[in-house]
Amino acid sequence: MNISLRGQKIQASPIRKLKPYADQAIARGVKVYFLNIGDPDVPTPQPVYDAFRDFKDPVLSYGPAQGFKELHVAMCDYFAGYNIPLAPDNIIVTTGGSEAILFAFNVVADPGDEIIVFEPFYTNYNGYAYFANVKLVPVTLRGENGFRLPPDAEIEAMINPKTRAILLCSPNNPTGTVYTPEELERIARIVKKHNLYLIGDEVYKELVYDGLVHKSILEYKAIEDRTIVVDSISKRFSCCGARIGALITRSKDIYGAALKFAQARLCPPSVEQKAAIAAYKMGLSYFAPVRAEYEHRRNVLYEGLKAIPGVSLYKPQGAFYMIVRIPVRDVEKFVVWMLSEFSHENQTVMVAPAEGFYSTPGKGRDEMRIAYVLKEEDLRKAVVAFRTGLEKYRSLNP
Amino acid sequence: MNISLRGQKIQASPIRKLKPYADQAIARGVKVYFLNIGDPDVPTPQPVYDAFRDFKDPVLSYGPAQGFKELHVAMCDYFAGYNIPLAPDNIIVTTGGSEAILFAFNVVADPGDEIIVFEPFYTNYNGYAYFANVKLVPVTLRGENGFRLPPDAEIEAMINPKTRAILLCSPNNPTGTVYTPEELERIARIVKKHNLYLIGDEVYKELVYDGLVHKSILEYKAIEDRTIVVDSISKRFSCCGARIGALITRSKDIYGAALKFAQARLCPPSVEQKAAIAAYKMGLSYFAPVRAEYEHRRNVLYEGLKAIPGVSLYKPQGAFYMIVRIPVRDVEKFVVWMLSEFSHENQTVMVAPAEGFYSTPGKGRDEMRIAYVLKEEDLRKAVVAFRTGLEKYRSLNP
Repeated sequence: MNISLRGQKIQASPIRKLKPYADQAIARGVKVYFLNIGDPDVPTPQPVYDAFRDFKDPVLSYGPAQGFKELHVAMCDYFAGYNIPLAPDNIIVTTGGSEAILFAFNVVADPGDEIIVFEPFYTNYNGYAYFANVKLVPVTLRGENGFRLPPDAEIEAMINPKTRAILLCSPNNPTGTVYTPEELERIARIVKKHNLYLIGDEVYKELVYDGLVHKSILEYKAIEDRTIVVDSISKRFSCCGARIGALITRSKDIYGAALKFAQARLCPPSVEQKAAIAAYKMGLSYFAPVRAEYEHRRNVLYEGLKAIPGVSLYKPQGAFYMIVRIPVRDVEKFVVWMLSEFSHENQTVMVAPAEGFYSTPGKGRDEMRIAYVLKEEDLRKAVVAFRTGLEKYRSLNP
Repeated sequence: MNISLRGQKIQASPIRKLKPYADQAIARGVKVYFLNIGDPDVPTPQPVYDAFRDFKDPVLSYGPAQGFKELHVAMCDYFAGYNIPLAPDNIIVTTGGSEAILFAFNVVADPGDEIIVFEPFYTNYNGYAYFANVKLVPVTLRGENGFRLPPDAEIEAMINPKTRAILLCSPNNPTGTVYTPEELERIARIVKKHNLYLIGDEVYKELVYDGLVHKSILEYKAIEDRTIVVDSISKRFSCCGARIGALITRSKDIYGAALKFAQARLCPPSVEQKAAIAAYKMGLSYFAPVRAEYEHRRNVLYEGLKAIPGVSLYKPQGAFYMIVRIPVRDVEKFVVWMLSEFSHENQTVMVAPAEGFYSTPGKGRDEMRIAYVLKEEDLRKAVVAFRTGLEKYRSLNP
């Protein structure tokens, strides 16, 4: 009596598997600064809660498989603010960005097909790949050049007859890189040349710093028949628990197939969609202070970490993550030690080992991913605890 | 540039594809009685809305992948009321029963594996089977004997080395059949003998009539290492739009694999889980009047349809569906005609052609599925309009 091979092989979430050590630290009375998971601390905007309170339909019934029209319209207004014209029937509301990724994989690929992804990448892509029985083929990026895309030849070398799509996340989780128009144009040329689909994970769209403007793959007319964007309100409105995302495409073929997958699961949550409508109606001005706050935190964390001997990192331009190389052989062991054996003034730090963000074995073992989702004061304390812990760990493990 | 084969092959929802004809009827000013879809009209209980209103966490953040512990405990209390002992870590909260089915298929089967299902069956199983690349192998049931299970030999004839599980829905959608302890014991023996998993879809657990008591596959100790129950609050609390379901198992292997799939999609909706907790806390006494109302409707509809010449049906014991054979060659054409060309006193009826509930080609073409989710007065009017329409259609199509 054995469960399926995919059930045996799917990896446990590398972000969540160390959580028991953090729980134990808390149980010992140690204050843990969580830099390991991207759960924003920015308060969820009041209109979201007002929408929950105001929901008064006599029956909480099924909605349309593609989501409420009113939400499609609110999203079109939002994208119009970025000069990206969309129609309501370019949008299928999904249960989180997660489901949009799952639909996208299923629409473009059959079992055994391949999708090219740049590593390090968001670990949960692996889970969806197991669900869809699709193989993720990594192209490795390098921290030394800020995780920019490699030359075309390096990408094209991974394309074979089984390749169906390229998946690009910008602003990037976990690197924080925001791809340039030049990089996006290169990718657009490659997918057109090799007749591939392009899946863009753009859930961190608002979070770009240093005066940069986010460029979406939806802005490239020449590939609109092969472009799918994965979207979500989770980070946009500090609403991770709402589970409202979207699959966006101007291709009628992609839309039609995704809609059939959407019908199979009936509909996304109704009340949470009402909350999303309320959130979008706040308008683009909502984002300026949120962006400013994250940019400030990025600066605080970047300066703090850069000053630690042996630590190497580049300054990311977006999202709220960075990948940092630290002078230890195996970051996972260091993380466990930080939680179970170390504290500084009764405080410690939890980070995510970056190895889980790579699919090439052995890559990223000396890197960590940090999410800057704490306020400045806590980030500063976290840096002190981290620096103290790292120095002690190195003295114990020379 | 072609989308995936599974994206091309997955069927559009047979329940939803005729909806445009209904929309046109409404646009013409015709009142349509919807007997085609199982969206309950029983008001959603007030504690659900109170929970939405009372949600005040500063950040609507990710919850645990397996759902909130408080919801597990509330569900354990609920099942204890049926003398079914469960522990919180037997339960993974899912986004609707839909996701529980998807997890169950993925946990027990690899691509190309087979799952035996009794037809007619809930059409959306097909969608999940496409997602999971699993083949559903039908064992045909017969309306003449109330869609009871066939002899063991007929079921065992469909088992081969690729067979991984049997899927049994009780109370059944779309037949309304409630399987007897004797039938369940037979299935339990078969899955044990052939080393298969047993997936039970029991989302209509409360809705059993004529004094019957629902028997769950969770009550069979001998197969608890191979049993998965798919559960949902959708019908239980008139909460279809909440998208809260559960995968229930006492097997640590199944639970462990399902948890990894659950981690890949992060978490089910947070606020809707709070609503589910509030609903479960109402206790089992909530269900008595709801059950009585549906039982009464079943009687009204059964008596009304039985009196129509040429119509044959059995009296279902549970859920809120029945499969009815009517004297037309192709029910789908009849449904389209009823919506686009017929009205009686400016009223018409929409039913679901049963063909979509069978996977054996040609089966069910002269059957319809009816959901009795309207109040008595409307059901009576619907029967009159249906009878009048059927007689006229037969006179036009002798």
